[in-house]
Amino acid sequence: MRTSQFPLSTVKETPADAEIASHKLMIRAGLIRKLAAGIYTWLPLGLRILRKVEQITREEMNKSGALEVLMPALQPAELWQETGRWEKYGPELARMKDRHDRDFCLGPTHEEIITDLARHELKSYKQLPVTYYQIQTKFRDEIRPRFGVMRSREFVMKDAYSFHLDQTSLQQTYDVMYQTYTNIFNRFGLKFRAVMADSGAIGGAVSHEFHVLADSGEDAIAFSTESEYAANVEKAETIRPALNRPAPEKTFEKTATPGKKTIAEVSEFLSVSPEKILKTLVVTHKGNELFGNPKDFHYLVLLRGDHELNEIKLNKIIGAFDFATDTVIETHLGCRPGYIGPITEGHKLFPGPITAIIADFAVENLSDFVCGANEAGFHYTGVNWERDCPLNGIEFRDIRQVVDGDPSPDGKGTLTIARGIEVGHIFQLGGKYSEAMQAAVVNEAGKNQTIIMGCYGIGVSRVVAAAIEQGHDERGIIWPKELAPFQVAICPMNMYKSDRLRDTVEQIYQDLLAAGIEVLLDDRKVRAGFMFSDMELIGIPHRVVIGDRGLDSGSVEYQGRGEAASQDVAMRDLVDFIKAKLA
Amino acid sequence: MRTSQFPLSTVKETPADAEIASHKLMIRAGLIRKLAAGIYTWLPLGLRILRKVEQITREEMNKSGALEVLMPALQPAELWQETGRWEKYGPELARMKDRHDRDFCLGPTHEEIITDLARHELKSYKQLPVTYYQIQTKFRDEIRPRFGVMRSREFVMKDAYSFHLDQTSLQQTYDVMYQTYTNIFNRFGLKFRAVMADSGAIGGAVSHEFHVLADSGEDAIAFSTESEYAANVEKAETIRPALNRPAPEKTFEKTATPGKKTIAEVSEFLSVSPEKILKTLVVTHKGNELFGNPKDFHYLVLLRGDHELNEIKLNKIIGAFDFATDTVIETHLGCRPGYIGPITEGHKLFPGPITAIIADFAVENLSDFVCGANEAGFHYTGVNWERDCPLNGIEFRDIRQVVDGDPSPDGKGTLTIARGIEVGHIFQLGGKYSEAMQAAVVNEAGKNQTIIMGCYGIGVSRVVAAAIEQGHDERGIIWPKELAPFQVAICPMNMYKSDRLRDTVEQIYQDLLAAGIEVLLDDRKVRAGFMFSDMELIGIPHRVVIGDRGLDSGSVEYQGRGEAASQDVAMRDLVDFIKAKLA
Repeated sequence: MRTSQFPLSTVKETPADAEIASHKLMIRAGLIRKLAAGIYTWLPLGLRILRKVEQITREEMNKSGALEVLMPALQPAELWQETGRWEKYGPELARMKDRHDRDFCLGPTHEEIITDLARHELKSYKQLPVTYYQIQTKFRDEIRPRFGVMRSREFVMKDAYSFHLDQTSLQQTYDVMYQTYTNIFNRFGLKFRAVMADSGAIGGAVSHEFHVLADSGEDAIAFSTESEYAANVEKAETIRPALNRPAPEKTFEKTATPGKKTIAEVSEFLSVSPEKILKTLVVTHKGNELFGNPKDFHYLVLLRGDHELNEIKLNKIIGAFDFATDTVIETHLGCRPGYIGPITEGHKLFPGPITAIIADFAVENLSDFVCGANEAGFHYTGVNWERDCPLNGIEFRDIRQVVDGDPSPDGKGTLTIARGIEVGHIFQLGGKYSEAMQAAVVNEAGKNQTIIMGCYGIGVSRVVAAAIEQGHDERGIIWPKELAPFQVAICPMNMYKSDRLRDTVEQIYQDLLAAGIEVLLDDRKVRAGFMFSDMELIGIPHRVVIGDRGLDSGSVEYQGRGEAASQDVAMRDLVDFIKAKLA
Repeated sequence: MRTSQFPLSTVKETPADAEIASHKLMIRAGLIRKLAAGIYTWLPLGLRILRKVEQITREEMNKSGALEVLMPALQPAELWQETGRWEKYGPELARMKDRHDRDFCLGPTHEEIITDLARHELKSYKQLPVTYYQIQTKFRDEIRPRFGVMRSREFVMKDAYSFHLDQTSLQQTYDVMYQTYTNIFNRFGLKFRAVMADSGAIGGAVSHEFHVLADSGEDAIAFSTESEYAANVEKAETIRPALNRPAPEKTFEKTATPGKKTIAEVSEFLSVSPEKILKTLVVTHKGNELFGNPKDFHYLVLLRGDHELNEIKLNKIIGAFDFATDTVIETHLGCRPGYIGPITEGHKLFPGPITAIIADFAVENLSDFVCGANEAGFHYTGVNWERDCPLNGIEFRDIRQVVDGDPSPDGKGTLTIARGIEVGHIFQLGGKYSEAMQAAVVNEAGKNQTIIMGCYGIGVSRVVAAAIEQGHDERGIIWPKELAPFQVAICPMNMYKSDRLRDTVEQIYQDLLAAGIEVLLDDRKVRAGFMFSDMELIGIPHRVVIGDRGLDSGSVEYQGRGEAASQDVAMRDLVDFIKAKLA
């Protein structure tokens, strides 16, 4: 392609509403243009990239044996009513009425549609397993669309759905999809992790999210340095450490800490590191007359001072909760906010009207620690379990966020925490939709049997943005090879001043094309710096500069997108040189 | 592909709501399934065909220099309000509100969106001309969706839009698109005609429709046997024949024709062919007080008895009209319905309170003809212009439908009338949208200049149905080579009973695949007749039957989809034989 026939739409201005790098760069590089909030047009350059994502996805899905279909965007409400989602789904579901006043929605996902297809098309166990997929436009009426195509209202998804007679078959296809997704993201050339989206035991996960790693990612994920273990930080487990409490060295004292309430303040004031301070929280599980439990339940929650509570984990143990109000802490429990602790002056466990004391595993190994004295302006120091206070009555559980360096729950290596962007999700649906919609086949015994399902999504347009989040610098985008819109940019210097240069440029262009390489020849009459900054902005991996100077020596200047300096390459070697770079 | 991995979804039943062959066959062959009225899922087999239509379209559009983009389906009302189409467009425009109560529509077309893009992206005349296109899902809320994907509510379109500084440039791109469409439809392998959609003079047409010829087509089109001339029958012109009126032979008489009112009745009663009978109609252009013409205008309209009035043509001459009521004819004009004629008893032109007498060109050459005598039960016979009635006062115009055999208006050959299905449309929009939306560039003189536009559509999903309307028989679909989902079907007979046969089948399958031929190997355990009827139904052009019998002779049975009998082909020659068939 020549820029004269494939005009670039690069712009200098960064849009005011663009908060993240990919959004800014997609606008600046001329990949997309905003039509309305969360609704974008893909310009020719952007569409080339989107199509590459689509094509890699399609090829690998086909290899997996999945069958491509194309389902409608318009979905009748009746099907969503069958599964109850018409009511359950919030305002993100874009709803409309047709001219006959019938309810429709614009599909954000296609479980109902494919299950309806399956219950009509699949009659016998002999037709199972089968996986259908599509690459199709989806809609989600986001309350606050943002981040460009990362969270938009109209976007391209690959969604797939598999149908099975039993769990063994579902697990087999799920494993194939896990591998297919791994192949797809490897082919994209992106650093990614398959993250267990469920907190279940290792191996029993029925859902994985595929995250592209990028500092700007919305999700923090924890992954093992030595195994495939990866989980959302919210869901990554900690394992109970072996009991290994150091022997007490300090004496138990009540120490004045006037006005020092936070872990940081106490740590600084007493010159004690946060790991040696006990963080005590009070949470309340609200009672509800209607449901027969009129009483509020209050819990003490203990964590090491350097650890953070994982509310999802605690929620799974005690149900929905709020942090207790100061009034409850003061008038009901008789403590002072900021000075709460689990121990009484008489070396007993906190006797107040609480339901239970729940401590994180890590609390068990504390010694010579600091905790609140339940009196304003005082902490206990040199506290040791058993010696100063019994452990009986404390429930030890995994209730904290994992941190960098925690041992991996699968016993292999330690956890590293990084940020990720969720671009794929595979999920074992089981009978959720097939039961509600009565999708069944005749089994080998001649009886009707409800089928079970898996579903598998990739945010195709989101991958483009995620790739940019992972690969960019201050000059622009750095595409992985497989997603780059072109592999090579040819930048001729003052081509129009010299027939000889023009002929040489044309020859090099044709030679590269003939070698099957995607080349963008910048034949605009602009100065070299302008070309360079455009090619860096749009992220072409390899740049070849051809000028008068090189005509006599028969060489061109080559520079890789990420490289600091250029190198001379003989024209006669250029095709092989580039081929080696692309290999 | 093997049917075990690419299962067919053929069914015996024809859906009750399917009125036309393509709709029935697309369901029966398992190409589509209905989700809701006018909303269909494309099954794997159907999608293969749809993708071929898309791909051919894309390749030829790219060759033309057009740039592919992808615009959103969701379109904000504000842009449609700028062009006034938000109000003008009827209930076919699928409208909805987002969660913030803002108005959107689901695009049936993208003029507003692309013009909005253009007014932001195009700043200088140097960026012109440029053509953008997309292949994208469109929506039209048809009051009565029918004919399967032929008139559906959600469908795939290729739409393109070109931008120009002047008419010369627009005409150039228009001509390129005319040729591109011709190439596309030729590559589809379909019989088609480019039909002038405007009645304007030859060469000055600013709109062409591309019709696939099929007996079931909704539109009648007239095309020259010897030139490229083609027009919708409603719009095809007749040319004024040379004055060539035979000399009078009969005498003028008032003849009783009791109760004979229609051309057919009079023709039979008087044994006079309809070509020799004058058809006289009375039409009324209603007055309207509001617009300052309180008076109704009445016209006599004369046609040869075998010709039909073309209401569109008459409308262009006198404006909107209705056929006069019997009351008007009797009480106002003093004639009797069924016996009206342009001549008075005194051999004068009809003297009634009429505005004008408009006659079709063909009427001029009538002689010895019959016409109503304006008296119940009587016609004049042996009537001749000039001798029996002056021609002065009659306005001769082209007001009839063309008929088979009429001379082509371009002077080359005669017209043939056939039915067509509109699948493409190219159109010179001029400034319609760019003016309303103020899309302008800076011209060479440094001044702002409004750009002008062309638009170019192909109904991608409709092409699939149109191809079936053109190519089918009682057994199923007959695909043209380029659109067939597979080129060759291999039907092994009782493959599972013989290892030797299975190995041979596998070898032939692999050889054909290796030659780059799209093959469907039917490896189902079903009887031969079942395979044959499925392969005929889905329309695979070439069928290869391999059975035990042929193993010894080293031959297979070949039969083309349209052929009556099979022929033996040596296995070793098969690849070359098929290649020759596909060439």
